[in-house]
Order: sequence, then structure tokens, then C-alpha cells
Amino acid sequence: MRKGKFITVEGCEGVGKSTQIALLKEMFAGSGDVLFLREPGGTAISERIRSVILDIQNKGMSAVCEVLLYSAARAQLVEEVIKPALAEGKTVFCDRFTDSTFAYQGCARGLGAEAVERLNEIACAGLEPDLTIFFDLDPVAAFLRKGGADGEDRLEQEGMDFHRRVYAGYKLAAERYARRIVCVPAGGDIADVHERVVKALKERGVI
Amino acid sequence: MRKGKFITVEGCEGVGKSTQIALLKEMFAGSGDVLFLREPGGTAISERIRSVILDIQNKGMSAVCEVLLYSAARAQLVEEVIKPALAEGKTVFCDRFTDSTFAYQGCARGLGAEAVERLNEIACAGLEPDLTIFFDLDPVAAFLRKGGADGEDRLEQEGMDFHRRVYAGYKLAAERYARRIVCVPAGGDIADVHERVVKALKERGVI
Repeated sequence: MRKGKFITVEGCEGVGKSTQIALLKEMFAGSGDVLFLREPGGTAISERIRSVILDIQNKGMSAVCEVLLYSAARAQLVEEVIKPALAEGKTVFCDRFTDSTFAYQGCARGLGAEAVERLNEIACAGLEPDLTIFFDLDPVAAFLRKGGADGEDRLEQEGMDFHRRVYAGYKLAAERYARRIVCVPAGGDIADVHERVVKALKERGVI
Repeated sequence: MRKGKFITVEGCEGVGKSTQIALLKEMFAGSGDVLFLREPGGTAISERIRSVILDIQNKGMSAVCEVLLYSAARAQLVEEVIKPALAEGKTVFCDRFTDSTFAYQGCARGLGAEAVERLNEIACAGLEPDLTIFFDLDPVAAFLRKGGADGEDRLEQEGMDFHRRVYAGYKLAAERYARRIVCVPAGGDIADVHERVVKALKERGVI
């Protein structure tokens, strides 16, 4: 049944993910067959869940509550948007997906790989990305590039140690799911990074 | 570490659960050592999740999203309120808990016992009720007692078939967790039902 390609985009805060996604959107502008989504969000229900997750008021949120909310937002997005779009043959890009949960909650928050993998399975109901682009950059460099810890949401306000653990989590995911995750060095010129992304998309038959 | 008793209260819509809980509150009035909670809710974060779950706008919510939201609200309640209260020696009553998820999502929504049990484990992080009072009443009788399907939230608007499946789910849970679940016949006089509850609490050393 499934025909379209599903590509997820991952990386630490400040790694230049948004800039690169903007370039991809430009590249695919005018094509009705390409969909860009972001997590958590992408449906009315998932956006409401997103606002609970990121609300600065909710500093006391337990790590388990957080991972379950991410999984809930994902479940809705998968069923309501991603699966139907792929079935229609569309290409779907998603800014963050299961590897974010693996890196942030499984590793940085210490919930462990096994519980997170089980949750990802439940939330995705069998769906896996065809390709994951991981923007690989040392978290200290990424942090400085973004101008320090002055982010406005709950996760952007985490300390440097947290972001180091996230990065370690991504590296572990890249080993664990080596078949699907492509590490794209994210340092240097924006145009060079974009070229690396295009190369990865060509190699996997997305373009 | 854990010293207090944890009692959960379960049953279908219209079974008289709220009335019986009100009688228990009256019984324990003035005792600072007894806490009454309801699910989903009981913390600021869980109440925000509750409003997403019950919002009539969210009719398109997938069954998987729903169960993950219930689990998220539960995880926060367990960590922020229930575990600390039990550690202080308090008695905690909770209106709905894991068996609701088993009956509503696992059985009535068809997610299956295994996935729901795994989620309950993740959300509760090792916590289990000492006693569960299940108000047992045929769902047709409960439905009529409540005056038909004119409830205002998303779950109260489900049809009769759904509530029959919920009831079947509870009966299955009662067999599966027979050690902890006490079936209290919920038909007949309110005072009689209350007496049955008091008897069950005495037998388990709660009072």
C-alpha cells in the first residue's frame, strides 16, 4: 500500500536544521507531492499537545510524562497525516521524529533505549522512516552558533550537559539504526551542508 | 519506603462511582491523612492533558494517541502526587487508574491487553494499587440510570456498544488481577453499596 518516501530530519538545538529545511522547501516549491511536517505538531491535536510540552510553566513535568506526550503527538500525526500522505505517493519530510525521542528522552533524560523503542513502536504502528538525515555537529559549537541559552521554550532552557547527552544519544542511534540514518556534517557553509543533504536524498532515490 | 495504602476506584459511566466517592470523602472528612484524586487530572500538567483528552473538538483523536495521553497524565500524577503521599504514610484514593486504560483503550478501543499493560508499567514506574474497587453493574442499567447519551464530553458521547465493550474489559481485568480487584455489586440502594465498599476497605486493612 505504502508508496511515498518518508524522510526524517534530526539534530541538536542550534545545528542549523531549520535553515536546511527552509532550503529543502525552496527546492521542492511548487511540487504538490512533497509535504513538510514538524514534531511535535502537524495536526490540531498534536499542536495542542505541543503547547503542553513546551510551556515554560510545566518545568515540573516528569521525564516519563514528557516522553508519553511526545509519543501521543506522534501517534496522531502518523495516523492522521503521514500514513495517508505516503499512501497517496507523497514524499513526507518530518522535522524530528523517533530518533529525537531516543536521544532526548531515552538518553539525555535517562529513560533507557528499551522503553523508548517500545513507545516508538506503539506510536508509529509499524511506520519507519526510509531515510533519516542527522545533522552532526558538536553540541558546544551548535550552542554557540545559536547564541547561548536564551531560548524561550522549556527545552531550549536546558543546560549544556543536557545537550551533550542528547548528542551522545544521537550518535548511539546512528550506530543502532545505521541502515536508515545518514550523518551529514553540519559545520561550515550553509550551501555545502545543503549539497550534502541533496546527495543523500539522491542516493536514497528520493530525488 | 512506601507506607500508605493506595486504593483505586473503577467502573463504567453511570455506575454511581461519584456518589460513592462522595460518601467516602464524608467518611474520611477531617482526616488529613487521606487524599482523593481523579484521573485524568490531579496535577496542573495532568489537568491540561485531561482538557485535551475530553475536548469535544478532538473527535478525530486516534486510539493510540488517546491511550498515550492518559498514560502521560498518569505518569505525572504518580510521580508528583501519589508516590510522595504514600511515602508520607497517607491513604490515597484514585477515581480511575490503570484498569480504566485496560477496559477503555485495551478492550473497548481494541488496542489489546499487552500494549496497554506495557504502557501502564511505564506510566506507573512500579506502583500498583493495594486494592481496586470495581463497581459492577450491567452497562445498560448504568446508562439508563444516567439518563441516556447526553453527556457533555467526548467519552460520554460514545454509543452503547462501546460501553458494553468497556464492561467486558473490566470483567476481564477483574479475572486477570483477581488478587487486587474487588467486585462490588453497584445495583440497588446507595447506602447498601457504600456498606459493601466499607467492608472491602476493612478486609484489606485500609480502615
